[in-house]
Amino acid sequence: MATIDVPEQVSVLADAEALRKACKGWGTDEKAIISVLGHRNAVQRKQIRLAYEDLYQEDLIKRLESELSGDFEKAVYRWILDPADRDAVLANVAIKKLSPDHHVIVEISCTRSPEEHLAVRRAYQARFKHSLEEDVAAHTKGDTRKACHRKLLQPPYSIDITTSNRGGQSDSGGLRSSRHRKEVKGCRSLVPEMLSDDQLLVALVSAFRYDGEEINTRVANSEAKILHEAVKDKEFNHEEIIRILSTRSKMQLMATFNRYRDDHGTTITKNLEGDSGDEFLKTLRTTIRCLNDPKKYFEKVLRNSIRRVGTDEDALTRVIVTRAEKDLKDIKELYYKRNSVPLDQAVAKDTAGDYKALLLTLLGKED
Amino acid sequence: MATIDVPEQVSVLADAEALRKACKGWGTDEKAIISVLGHRNAVQRKQIRLAYEDLYQEDLIKRLESELSGDFEKAVYRWILDPADRDAVLANVAIKKLSPDHHVIVEISCTRSPEEHLAVRRAYQARFKHSLEEDVAAHTKGDTRKACHRKLLQPPYSIDITTSNRGGQSDSGGLRSSRHRKEVKGCRSLVPEMLSDDQLLVALVSAFRYDGEEINTRVANSEAKILHEAVKDKEFNHEEIIRILSTRSKMQLMATFNRYRDDHGTTITKNLEGDSGDEFLKTLRTTIRCLNDPKKYFEKVLRNSIRRVGTDEDALTRVIVTRAEKDLKDIKELYYKRNSVPLDQAVAKDTAGDYKALLLTLLGKED
Repeated sequence: MATIDVPEQVSVLADAEALRKACKGWGTDEKAIISVLGHRNAVQRKQIRLAYEDLYQEDLIKRLESELSGDFEKAVYRWILDPADRDAVLANVAIKKLSPDHHVIVEISCTRSPEEHLAVRRAYQARFKHSLEEDVAAHTKGDTRKACHRKLLQPPYSIDITTSNRGGQSDSGGLRSSRHRKEVKGCRSLVPEMLSDDQLLVALVSAFRYDGEEINTRVANSEAKILHEAVKDKEFNHEEIIRILSTRSKMQLMATFNRYRDDHGTTITKNLEGDSGDEFLKTLRTTIRCLNDPKKYFEKVLRNSIRRVGTDEDALTRVIVTRAEKDLKDIKELYYKRNSVPLDQAVAKDTAGDYKALLLTLLGKED
Repeated sequence: MATIDVPEQVSVLADAEALRKACKGWGTDEKAIISVLGHRNAVQRKQIRLAYEDLYQEDLIKRLESELSGDFEKAVYRWILDPADRDAVLANVAIKKLSPDHHVIVEISCTRSPEEHLAVRRAYQARFKHSLEEDVAAHTKGDTRKACHRKLLQPPYSIDITTSNRGGQSDSGGLRSSRHRKEVKGCRSLVPEMLSDDQLLVALVSAFRYDGEEINTRVANSEAKILHEAVKDKEFNHEEIIRILSTRSKMQLMATFNRYRDDHGTTITKNLEGDSGDEFLKTLRTTIRCLNDPKKYFEKVLRNSIRRVGTDEDALTRVIVTRAEKDLKDIKELYYKRNSVPLDQAVAKDTAGDYKALLLTLLGKED
């Protein structure tokens, strides 16, 4: 269930006028902006943007960006966008980071419905003139893959490849692995099934999963076994893991994860805990959490964003803004159960000013 | 341009009645079926199916299947379906073959527009309750991958792995590669960038390419270089090749292939010729042909389907049926240029009966 509180009667024209008034002259009336936009759903926000442009020949988003600043500006900008377009922006920001934020990419790929995710891919193309998978494939190369290589290069095959890998960061970096192969010529590849985590990411963002209810129990059994074998052998980046996680329907995966739990007395994510420095393993855990229980996953992201020294505003904003019209009410309940503190109280304690006011409004609780 | 000849005025009801009459009583009037269905476009055929069902409480497709037989039945069945649904059926047939037909999967993934391909993925899910990529990933394992493994296992690392691979054909085959790894323990994987061709297929069917005109010349230059390096080193199943071919837009790829040609004086497909037994290499060439010049590719499929001893009816039907409403006129022209024989004449020589009559009708030429 959603948390935002939308009045029954809304006048898009009156809203556009109120926003214009809030932005006009000296100073900005942030409270007025929150009291309008914080109580409108995605369709209404879009209509307001169109009405505003019609009335004032001005892009409302650009105007708000020039009026506002800091976390508040970022949150308003995220909130005002269409959900699919917002996800496209979030994904692009995550991809373009010096060290791409795999968790955001996984979150967007795995917690949205297949149709929602497809809408994100469309929005991404419309905005960035590239496909999402194209940018993920071109930009996520070479960061955590290094860690993954190092892992593979255990004794007695340990060879320092850090220098040979350095050139691979840029788009035009050429064949990193070709160079790499030359360095480690003493031992040629025999196992093409071991993949790096950009392959996992590309497979996840490219997925258009079946969204029906049908489950194949035989497949659940055999794939629970495949997953367990791979986890047991610590072959986390095994091609079969990636195939299963990126192509099976969510219902099918739930059946598989349940089977795993029944057969082995523990969840697959528990079995994947361990080396906290292993980026691939982290990405894998996030993937399974997002697919298996997105609300629980979002609760955890919120908890971590607040609990840490220094709030992680990006994560906090992202979850509240993207879930406020969806299931934030359920996530709030989970948060309370897990932390014995209401989410809005925790958010209020950790934030301030207009930013705080907007988040609380989206959480369904005025300051 | 299309080849089928559709009259300006069509009465869907009259068509349904004519088809009913053609199927009723002793014997079937195949000529009547051809003279109706062979001159109707996809929208009309759908309307006819709906009208027929409405009038006679009977599925027209099922009725035709029970009345007709052989290549003619197959061709009518393929033709009457919606294009996206037809592609879904073609893909499924290709996947389910004992030795999956990679070329059909590549053809469907790479010659359709991004939106058409997406419609195929939707149709596939509606019909088979699985995603296309899910079935490709689950069913294409273990056939040509073996060849690819053998290729990798050149001296001095040559080990016979055929027996250890045998278990990998079935869905529940467990971790083939895990077993495989044990067999070849003497040399662990260092290069996760070498992929097998099911990875290429899965990436191609999962693609939702950007369809715009924008080209990045810098990327074309650097990726032409990457492709050339990989081809030169015979690293055909290199992760970078698969990334480029499966994520870049067709316009971008054309720029890249052109650059390749300009830089090296020869096309990439020419450079990929060689070992005719190498399935991966064949799949790769088909991929590039389909992406770069689909009409030329279709001309070649037609040529091979006719030229060989024993006509390849599946390929012949597939190309004529799927292109008749699209670009078969252009393909016919290419065929004539290349073979100095009109396509309809070649088809007439190689086929017979109602099957021949339907193909010629779809080619825009009555027998």
